[in-house]
Amino acid sequence: KWISSDNFFTMIPGDGIGPEISAAVMKIFEAAKAPITWEERNVTAIKGPGGRWMIPPDAKESMDRSKIGLKGPLKTPIAAGHPSMNLLLRKTFDLYANVRPCVSIEGYKTPYTDVNLVTIRENTEGEYSGIEHMIVDGVVQSIKLITENASRRIAEYAFEYARNNKRTSVTAVHKANIMRMSDGLFLRKCREVAENYKDIKFTEMYLDTVCLNMVQDPTQFDVLVMPNLYGDILSDLCAGLIGGLGVTPSGNIGANGVAIFESVHGTAPDIAGMDLANPTALLLSAVMMLRHMGLHDHADKIQTACFDTIRDKKVLTKDLGGSAKCSEFTAEICRRVQDLG
Amino acid sequence: KWISSDNFFTMIPGDGIGPEISAAVMKIFEAAKAPITWEERNVTAIKGPGGRWMIPPDAKESMDRSKIGLKGPLKTPIAAGHPSMNLLLRKTFDLYANVRPCVSIEGYKTPYTDVNLVTIRENTEGEYSGIEHMIVDGVVQSIKLITENASRRIAEYAFEYARNNKRTSVTAVHKANIMRMSDGLFLRKCREVAENYKDIKFTEMYLDTVCLNMVQDPTQFDVLVMPNLYGDILSDLCAGLIGGLGVTPSGNIGANGVAIFESVHGTAPDIAGMDLANPTALLLSAVMMLRHMGLHDHADKIQTACFDTIRDKKVLTKDLGGSAKCSEFTAEICRRVQDLG
Ligand SMILES: CC(C)[C@H](C(=O)O)[C@@H](O)C(=O)O
Ligand SMILES: CC(C)[C@H](C(=O)O)[C@@H](O)C(=O)O
Repeated sequence: KWISSDNFFTMIPGDGIGPEISAAVMKIFEAAKAPITWEERNVTAIKGPGGRWMIPPDAKESMDRSKIGLKGPLKTPIAAGHPSMNLLLRKTFDLYANVRPCVSIEGYKTPYTDVNLVTIRENTEGEYSGIEHMIVDGVVQSIKLITENASRRIAEYAFEYARNNKRTSVTAVHKANIMRMSDGLFLRKCREVAENYKDIKFTEMYLDTVCLNMVQDPTQFDVLVMPNLYGDILSDLCAGLIGGLGVTPSGNIGANGVAIFESVHGTAPDIAGMDLANPTALLLSAVMMLRHMGLHDHADKIQTACFDTIRDKKVLTKDLGGSAKCSEFTAEICRRVQDLG
Repeated sequence: KWISSDNFFTMIPGDGIGPEISAAVMKIFEAAKAPITWEERNVTAIKGPGGRWMIPPDAKESMDRSKIGLKGPLKTPIAAGHPSMNLLLRKTFDLYANVRPCVSIEGYKTPYTDVNLVTIRENTEGEYSGIEHMIVDGVVQSIKLITENASRRIAEYAFEYARNNKRTSVTAVHKANIMRMSDGLFLRKCREVAENYKDIKFTEMYLDTVCLNMVQDPTQFDVLVMPNLYGDILSDLCAGLIGGLGVTPSGNIGANGVAIFESVHGTAPDIAGMDLANPTALLLSAVMMLRHMGLHDHADKIQTACFDTIRDKKVLTKDLGGSAKCSEFTAEICRRVQDLG
């Protein structure tokens, strides 16, 4: 596990409510006396040589030095041919593992309790290859690309994650009954890697069956590993079980400690700049980042203060059922962080 | 709408618990004095000329005459290269629309109430094209095929369904932000068809967003239309919301009234032949079939008797929370059907 020598990271505030919620996170980091420094960078795409879209060189350069980013929401560009910035970031830094812990939050009521699972999504290939053709007029094909290397890499990540986080089982999610070669390859690699982790229980399940079982009893799942699109779907479904994207953290992990942690909700332009946003998802993503940096004490303190604030129900933003402003919610978390010492 | 002249259909009892639950359905049809006749057929795949797997000629021939089938679960063959019989049936009869109403059942508790939606899945192409290649060792691609014709056809089916079933909205489910050409084509056809149905509200939503919203509040959805794989996933998810595959009916609809109605649960070999199976999913699929045949009075009567039995909670099979045998549950429904006149 890579530990930053100087606890330095790149802050990408993002669009819409992004600046407000990143400011909130920085305030809470300060209250927690987190020994970190950061550089703020904008990642609005620019056109590079040959007309290829790329992230701005100063953002890339900052990430190359810091290795670690924290990112707010980015607006989806409307220009034809413009890539999703989220995808471009994942690609630029080869962030191959998308990790989303979904844990029930005490005091925030949903139809489910005791959800405690992690989706681990292959983040670089599959249905997101971007290769599509028109064969003849009215007939289009999209290519799903599955490789042995990417499949083995994500399977290894999932089992390592399970072991390092005291989790007991990994479920490979697939449709190898339909995509026998591609999902078949993915599944085979999971099985092979499982052989090296006899301490972790390995199961395999069809994606449709996982979805059905998930809404009936999510507590049966622990770590789930899957190709790109299935992860996109299942991670959002699981976020829904615990209260939605406003409270769900996320991390994109690459090799050698490179990582970008992000809130995966939208930019909420309707409430941007109005001090109404909920910073929880970005804050919990920042907590994941602190753990990734090895700053577990600060991570624990901030997480406790955040969950205590939610459980207490006294100072909550509107989406959480309260009437507090973003700044009030943030101040309450800061107060609790300071109380924790 | 096609109406059978002689109310004749092909019964495919299937494997495992299939024979028991189809016998139960026939008993209930008899009690309801449903004016129907049927032919029983086995559809275990056989190898035809050139080694291609096909359904047995006498089953095909029966379906060609009856146009309508009712099917229990079929076991998944283990032989390499053996196709799923469910897929082979859909293909053989070009059953392009997979229709699954998901409606909350009074008295059968799940975390959700008032679910009342229908998933309409394109059933012939997409990720189920079966075209896959190994490019080089360790690199595999699967092809997702989307055509204008199949997309228009399923969109038209969805809007017709909405109109004929007094439903008010159709949501197209897609990932056109990622698969811009294929899902883009699907979505474009949905938009075009929507133009002809100004009485039905049309919306579009990303699959991940649908999954998230679905588990948070399924009552916001009405008719959903989508490509093949998304339908596979979403229909199972929705079945989970109302109690699982044991209580969820399904129909596969083709052109000119051709259709196969089926329970989509498994063969449950562990309880096969023990008089413990729950015939509800097959029975409700048979109710869909009766409606398709225009036999609405009989359909209503059977449906009422089935739901009353479940709401009453006195005679329920084990999976429904009771201790009755399949035959006792069936007898109770028959009694109520007869009481209804
Ligand atoms: C923004 C979009 C391209 C992205 C995806 O589809 O992967 C999002 O849904 C996510 O899960 O991060
Ligand atoms: C049996 C299997 C091939 C099938 C599918 O994947 O379509 C099933 O899950 C279904 O939904 O009918």
